[in-house]
Amino acid sequence: MPDTPAQIDASLEIVRAVYENLPFNRLLGLSVTDLQPDQAGFTFAMRNELIGNSVHGILHGGVISAVLDTTGGLTATAAAIKRRPNLSKDEIIAWIARIGTIDMRVDYLRPGRGKRFRSSGTVMRTGNKVAVTRMELRNEGNVMIAVGTGAYIVG
Amino acid sequence: MPDTPAQIDASLEIVRAVYENLPFNRLLGLSVTDLQPDQAGFTFAMRNELIGNSVHGILHGGVISAVLDTTGGLTATAAAIKRRPNLSKDEIIAWIARIGTIDMRVDYLRPGRGKRFRSSGTVMRTGNKVAVTRMELRNEGNVMIAVGTGAYIVG
Amino acid sequence: MPDTPAQIDASLEIVRAVYENLPFNRLLGLSVTDLQPDQAGFTFAMRNELIGNSVHGILHGGVISAVLDTTGGLTATAAAIKRRPNLSKDEIIAWIARIGTIDMRVDYLRPGRGKRFRSSGTVMRTGNKVAVTRMELRNEGNVMIAVGTGAYIVG
Amino acid sequence: MPDTPAQIDASLEIVRAVYENLPFNRLLGLSVTDLQPDQAGFTFAMRNELIGNSVHGILHGGVISAVLDTTGGLTATAAAIKRRPNLSKDEIIAWIARIGTIDMRVDYLRPGRGKRFRSSGTVMRTGNKVAVTRMELRNEGNVMIAVGTGAYIVG
Repeated sequence: MPDTPAQIDASLEIVRAVYENLPFNRLLGLSVTDLQPDQAGFTFAMRNELIGNSVHGILHGGVISAVLDTTGGLTATAAAIKRRPNLSKDEIIAWIARIGTIDMRVDYLRPGRGKRFRSSGTVMRTGNKVAVTRMELRNEGNVMIAVGTGAYIVG
Repeated sequence: MPDTPAQIDASLEIVRAVYENLPFNRLLGLSVTDLQPDQAGFTFAMRNELIGNSVHGILHGGVISAVLDTTGGLTATAAAIKRRPNLSKDEIIAWIARIGTIDMRVDYLRPGRGKRFRSSGTVMRTGNKVAVTRMELRNEGNVMIAVGTGAYIVG
Repeated sequence: MPDTPAQIDASLEIVRAVYENLPFNRLLGLSVTDLQPDQAGFTFAMRNELIGNSVHGILHGGVISAVLDTTGGLTATAAAIKRRPNLSKDEIIAWIARIGTIDMRVDYLRPGRGKRFRSSGTVMRTGNKVAVTRMELRNEGNVMIAVGTGAYIVG
Repeated sequence: MPDTPAQIDASLEIVRAVYENLPFNRLLGLSVTDLQPDQAGFTFAMRNELIGNSVHGILHGGVISAVLDTTGGLTATAAAIKRRPNLSKDEIIAWIARIGTIDMRVDYLRPGRGKRFRSSGTVMRTGNKVAVTRMELRNEGNVMIAVGTGAYIVG
């Protein structure tokens, strides 16, 4: 069975479903709005539960780090799935469950002010064992709120 | 008015109330269980919404990074308040609102398995402008799940 | 005295001289080949003393981290000098001596293979106290060998 | 052939020789003064070429990051060699050449002032593929100058 784009699309749909159904991603209100082999991202809406500074009404730093971590994981997963073209749905789900963050750095550039936020991840390196991704978080005005870098075990 | 321990205790009580009432910290279920001028930490219980891996039933990496970020913030705040002995309650609340994470690194050492988790932060450096803290997350069996380092603007 | 481009150029020349004359930068063989208010970088040549892997003959990881750190420092200095338009040469030198790295992350993407290397730094955030920069290292074939992020105290 | 302590000692002697003979480690003047399966470290002396701040006469931040990187590498290598008990000298040398830093964070806590410096690394996690280490740098007065965390590919 060749590694066709259609097959990658089918695999990416499984990846999307897994990530959107993770309980904590649901608690944050994350929707996958970009999912390609080299980049991926989520969007989510501001709401009171995500506030970390009651005086200024801005996103909690922990929401930002959480979204960047899962964005890096989604991106690393999407990048690595190309190398695993013949997996069944169950095999993909089992493989995703073995993917994990090794480490992550987050730089908080500006206050998390906004109504809607969009994360994006790109692949900086992907190998058989480790993928390295770069992540950004922006608001609806395209203001960059935070950036991050993560290393993920993918195999 | 001298900088007495009693006064620091009163200031730390305000810090505790601010951190426990942050909406996202409430969503995570965090309680301050340690709060001293040089170290601080939270505890929280596992529950389904915090899961990030449905196959293994373990904490989402984003929960871990969020808890470590807010633990570092709590620790940096507690460390810096010693240098601000004569602030009123309103001044303390306004000052905490200006504290922010510059950056953070998280190392995910072991799967986030457990029923109850405890974070702890210690101060590695504190100056007039920037505090650097080290954070750990352990489960009820004292297994170290993750460590982190954060830099915080404190003045 | 207005903050003219000519004046910024004069200040940047002092910055260049300071960085090129730092003893360890001379030991590494670094030349400033880009120096603007928003970006800056060095070049250096491969030589035997910089090797960190005798089997493969590639750059030592410590050379890479050292070059990225000083590239971030150069970039942060160049960015911050715009805010200090009326300093004398001696004041600039004294101010540079107070600039310091708070922390840095380096991601090693590919082996440090090449004959000539070029680093580049860009500013992600600059404030009165802290600047955050992103750094890259590439070889003469434009292969990206490493990236980094640094936070610097600038005031 | 069992995995005896004597055999580990012999393997560690090969590790020591490889690290002390790396050209850049020689340029820095590093000597291995601690080498055990769970911790390792170097010492080196201040000299003019290592200065990064001519006003204050302190270590260049790049020296600090370089020493911490190679300390983490030495520590990860020492930790991982226990799992490879039956390698010949040539196999050990070839295996060390494949070890590489994935990423590293350095926190600069205090100015690099001193006559003699000592680094130490400890293992926070070691697996078949990735080891995570924590590193410190202190001067002859035991003042902690910098700390770091690194992730290394070890297999």
